[in-house]
Amino acid sequence: MENLQDIAHQVYQRTGVMTSSKDVEKILSAVAATPHFWEIITLSQRPFSVVAEMIELLRQKNLVTIEKNGDIKFNSKGLEYLNSLKIVPKRVYTCPACEGRGINLSKLEDLIKKFDQVTVNRPKAISDYDQGFVTTQTVVSRIVLMAERGDLEGKKLLVLGDDDLVSIAAGLSGMPTEIVVMEIDDRIVEYINEVANKYNLPIKAMKYDFRDKLPDEYVGYFDTFITDPPETIEALEICIGRGISALSQEGCAGYFGLTLIEASLGKWNIFQQILASKFKVVVTDIIDDFNHYVNWDYLLKSVGKDYAFVQVEPRLNWYRSSMYRIETLIDSKGIENEYKPCELYVDEEALIYKEENK
Amino acid sequence: MENLQDIAHQVYQRTGVMTSSKDVEKILSAVAATPHFWEIITLSQRPFSVVAEMIELLRQKNLVTIEKNGDIKFNSKGLEYLNSLKIVPKRVYTCPACEGRGINLSKLEDLIKKFDQVTVNRPKAISDYDQGFVTTQTVVSRIVLMAERGDLEGKKLLVLGDDDLVSIAAGLSGMPTEIVVMEIDDRIVEYINEVANKYNLPIKAMKYDFRDKLPDEYVGYFDTFITDPPETIEALEICIGRGISALSQEGCAGYFGLTLIEASLGKWNIFQQILASKFKVVVTDIIDDFNHYVNWDYLLKSVGKDYAFVQVEPRLNWYRSSMYRIETLIDSKGIENEYKPCELYVDEEALIYKEENK
Ligand SMILES: [Fe+2]
Ligand SMILES: [Fe+2]
Repeated sequence: MENLQDIAHQVYQRTGVMTSSKDVEKILSAVAATPHFWEIITLSQRPFSVVAEMIELLRQKNLVTIEKNGDIKFNSKGLEYLNSLKIVPKRVYTCPACEGRGINLSKLEDLIKKFDQVTVNRPKAISDYDQGFVTTQTVVSRIVLMAERGDLEGKKLLVLGDDDLVSIAAGLSGMPTEIVVMEIDDRIVEYINEVANKYNLPIKAMKYDFRDKLPDEYVGYFDTFITDPPETIEALEICIGRGISALSQEGCAGYFGLTLIEASLGKWNIFQQILASKFKVVVTDIIDDFNHYVNWDYLLKSVGKDYAFVQVEPRLNWYRSSMYRIETLIDSKGIENEYKPCELYVDEEALIYKEENK
Repeated sequence: MENLQDIAHQVYQRTGVMTSSKDVEKILSAVAATPHFWEIITLSQRPFSVVAEMIELLRQKNLVTIEKNGDIKFNSKGLEYLNSLKIVPKRVYTCPACEGRGINLSKLEDLIKKFDQVTVNRPKAISDYDQGFVTTQTVVSRIVLMAERGDLEGKKLLVLGDDDLVSIAAGLSGMPTEIVVMEIDDRIVEYINEVANKYNLPIKAMKYDFRDKLPDEYVGYFDTFITDPPETIEALEICIGRGISALSQEGCAGYFGLTLIEASLGKWNIFQQILASKFKVVVTDIIDDFNHYVNWDYLLKSVGKDYAFVQVEPRLNWYRSSMYRIETLIDSKGIENEYKPCELYVDEEALIYKEENK
């Protein structure tokens, strides 16, 4: 029967994303654990297109059957194949108390409640800016993480893009002295300023496209930045580079999410080279599955794959990302403060599919 | 009064370790949270020598008082100083259910019990090889982490140095098909082989000094390695480089602990450059405070500082390290398989102090 290396190669040919036999193994192990496409992505932590094309390949090779509701099940030939490779269903041992983040939120129940009340009429996620916001548990865990690391209390915080409304949670926590939001979406800029005004929070939101230079007064101004960057290499470099440029000195910190759903391990490596050698910052934490995103309306329309097993409403908050924390050193530096054109959202690893960019 | 930058500079002059005003802030915040020297290190996550010299400096400047039992307390001048800087006591929000690792051990209670029974007569940690082993919770969490990431079940595991007895826990879990231990300490080699024999575990332990080349048959042989390397840059590079050389292909994984107690952020950056650019591997996880070490007998004799606040028996398992997971790519490579002389344990950031290396 088909060997793993051959499957990996065929997946590579279909997607353009480097795929190893170990990747194939991880996806098989995830399929053995759940029939639901979106959960297979969560469990295998491999790029969307890789998972989709590999399952289509398994279907074509008659190893899995797609049921009426889109469920993916190994048939007897498929189960035999798994056995022959000694592949077992993916094991999960996530701490239920903290959803695996390692953070205790019990002291923050008030903040959780308050955040939900205050943001009940938040703007909906729209596809124009590849939006999709995180759960309240995630937002508050971000606040706690920054607070625990000494990066929030009495500090100046920059939020670079804020459909997640981290600025509001940070404001409600009472910890930062000043919060600046730079955000491309007018609806969100306006919404945050309204809330800040109403609840008297030390937040100022302004319209900003991170391809533009930072306002001069904010270069070297902040203690901490947080962002959820688009995941092309160019966008990562510019977005995180801007964040670093906005920090005031050594020992400052940056926080951002990065997925393995829209960024392959190869992309992570290139980005880690940039962080370590070009920006000369240290990665102090990479916390797997930290950020959980609330499902957004435009998903099935935007993914550009019409396989029956893909065109299924997600049954869980399947989109997750790792949380990176970086810290600056004495010779850290971001990017030049000038306009940088770049492709933000679309490459072969992206989830979103834009016809005009084919 | 003294500004943070001046204190940072004086600490640098006393230790030779780059120290920023933010480092000073973090240590002040830790001292505000606990009077116990070893807990201050745990909370501030800064190099041993930096923390010790900074507290001595605070004492000389009459900002803290050292009590009879070695406790460190801000006096009224010190508290005023903290207030003027708006420094608050370090906050801790660790999930109590998982000690912050994010891992649920409830399915593994049998393994925890069994491991403790089997290893009850384990060799004591000795200073010759800078030993100090981790708690049972930590060992089993390592097993779970490897299992969850698909790096253990049905796999060949290399344990490079094993005073922690990870090999025995892995053997008892029944998951790996083959476990090889390479270890410099004869006592541990012998002990592991005896236990493996008695309990019929698929483990083979052999004497090995990681400065020596790997046995040829083990180059490119394993799926996964795990190690707890000494923390000079040279030792890190050689030890992790050997581990990578021992892996068979892309998509394999390595696990190792790294502290901020014996390695500064500057050292982390240099090492991350090596990982990303020279070895071309990806760091997929850095889990803060994952590894907790059981206190060892020779600590106070070996640290080479006789300050009253240092010469105090630790009241907690204060020595912690972050867990790194790396994954190989198609163009990853370790180091040449030849003898590499190197300084293992001593540099200006080390905890252990060897007179002959002054
Ligand atoms: Fe978002
Ligand atoms: Fe937990």
